[in-house]
Amino acid sequence: MIARPYLLFLASAHDINEAKTAAGIARFRPDDCIGEFAYADCATTTGLPRLTIEEAADLGARTLVIGVAASGGALAPAWIETIASALRAGLDIASGMHMRLRDQPRIAELAASLGRELHDVRIPPRDLPIGSGRPRAGRRVLTVGTDCSVGKMFTALLVEAELRERGVPATFRATGQTGILIAGTGVPVDAVVADFLSGAVEQLAPAAADPDHIDVIEGQGSLFHPSFAGVSLGLLHGAAPHRMILCHDPTRDRMRGDTDHGLPSLTACRDLNERLARLTNPEARVCGVALNTSRLGEREAAQAIDAAAAELGLPACDPIRTGVTSLADAILA
Amino acid sequence: MIARPYLLFLASAHDINEAKTAAGIARFRPDDCIGEFAYADCATTTGLPRLTIEEAADLGARTLVIGVAASGGALAPAWIETIASALRAGLDIASGMHMRLRDQPRIAELAASLGRELHDVRIPPRDLPIGSGRPRAGRRVLTVGTDCSVGKMFTALLVEAELRERGVPATFRATGQTGILIAGTGVPVDAVVADFLSGAVEQLAPAAADPDHIDVIEGQGSLFHPSFAGVSLGLLHGAAPHRMILCHDPTRDRMRGDTDHGLPSLTACRDLNERLARLTNPEARVCGVALNTSRLGEREAAQAIDAAAAELGLPACDPIRTGVTSLADAILA
Repeated sequence: MIARPYLLFLASAHDINEAKTAAGIARFRPDDCIGEFAYADCATTTGLPRLTIEEAADLGARTLVIGVAASGGALAPAWIETIASALRAGLDIASGMHMRLRDQPRIAELAASLGRELHDVRIPPRDLPIGSGRPRAGRRVLTVGTDCSVGKMFTALLVEAELRERGVPATFRATGQTGILIAGTGVPVDAVVADFLSGAVEQLAPAAADPDHIDVIEGQGSLFHPSFAGVSLGLLHGAAPHRMILCHDPTRDRMRGDTDHGLPSLTACRDLNERLARLTNPEARVCGVALNTSRLGEREAAQAIDAAAAELGLPACDPIRTGVTSLADAILA
Repeated sequence: MIARPYLLFLASAHDINEAKTAAGIARFRPDDCIGEFAYADCATTTGLPRLTIEEAADLGARTLVIGVAASGGALAPAWIETIASALRAGLDIASGMHMRLRDQPRIAELAASLGRELHDVRIPPRDLPIGSGRPRAGRRVLTVGTDCSVGKMFTALLVEAELRERGVPATFRATGQTGILIAGTGVPVDAVVADFLSGAVEQLAPAAADPDHIDVIEGQGSLFHPSFAGVSLGLLHGAAPHRMILCHDPTRDRMRGDTDHGLPSLTACRDLNERLARLTNPEARVCGVALNTSRLGEREAAQAIDAAAAELGLPACDPIRTGVTSLADAILA
């Protein structure tokens, strides 16, 4: 568990896409954030107060979260300085970058000497179990997709928020680095050794004490993506979901990073996910569709949502544009 | 690549099942073996000449292969002595054990000082690529199964041998530790980080220079096993097989290590493997059935083989009992 509240580090980000991780945390966990720290040439903001590291520490910040992607293969000297200052000011550090904090000698030594934590959230926990495939208490919802990067994390977070607003006990379960930084905990499933994939997800979303509790689990990849379908299937079997939400970008016609393969139809994607999910949860069913219509105008977006609802006979929405009330209704029905 | 010929280490094995790895290598790669080394209380044999380490070294042995499973969590002192003697006699060491040779300080230091190689074949190669899903030259056959441990490695090895005997260029591609020790190379797919599963298998069975060359790829797990289906799917997509052989134990009624799940029917197993394989190879087709009938009498075995052939309308056999001529015919048809 990463200590909160956070100070979000934006470095010299030119726009909010470059500071995607910081923006996601600020959006979904505003109460967990004290503010942001950025260099003078940073041209964007999360909307949180701009603070120095010392000001943030005085206000109670516990962890500096790297909220931007580093461009090169190594940490820039300025970043090392920033991280060192934060450690000296009493903060832990959390990062979803490929390069590991613990592999930077100066950072690792300073953290060890000061007794601070370094959280490299791309590193999975040790001693993961093999999946058991056995039924467990509580209800689980999984976001699945026609492709990578179609809104599975956003949808899961918005559904969790909607359920909580209705007084339903719900917990977002993060399976990727941005989600883990937002939730403060989770398992980066794509970095888990293959044999332990479904076991890692069983541990991430364990049996619930309250049988009405709902885990909203962030999906990864797609059963139709030739590079990552194994990850998606291991995640699906470990999640053993009662309900699935099908996420899709209606403007995409080729799988991400792969020009040879087209996207599956919504029907094909629903059918295959339901069929394979039933191995570990015979009740598994797709109950709604979440479209990412950000590249469409208002009218085209409404048409795409109507078409998806008609194709599957299920509620459909764009979680950002129209909200997720229909998805929450379907989950609770 | 592990240097051959091998000296097979049997330690104090009581029976041939305990020395399964040694027995497999002796059976499938007799020309790669100089002999076996065992302690005085060993009660079994591979049938190869029993040698001292020095005799084996004089005869040209290049690698001592640990051919038995160690019972405890740590290497027995006697084994450490044996391994040290082999290193001093000029041999490399290869092991498929969970405990790593390189984690044993005395062995690691001695190997480094003598310039010998330690092969821990459960450790996957570094810098594996992400799977591309793109078509590649050559033909590929994959053994798939209704469950774990139903004969996928044996079937692949026997099919490779039969194809070679007919003059067909064929290469066994190992995906598990015993297979890797038999082949001298391979990738332990269950130990690969999930994101690189299909990429690891694309690298293991790369584009062939000869378009008629056949890679015979060892399958792992089962699409129907709740613990390991993700591994099986990543392997399937990376293998992109033209033909698949369906392996099954007709006496098993529950999935291995999992009393909650029954085995799929042969038809269901064929259909799902074909459907999912076609994402990366539209020609993918199951062309035959390999049954492990070792727990059945002669008549029951024949009946099981006939029943499997009738159910799928495909050639069926027990590779050990009846040979694999019908499978090779089907692959070449």
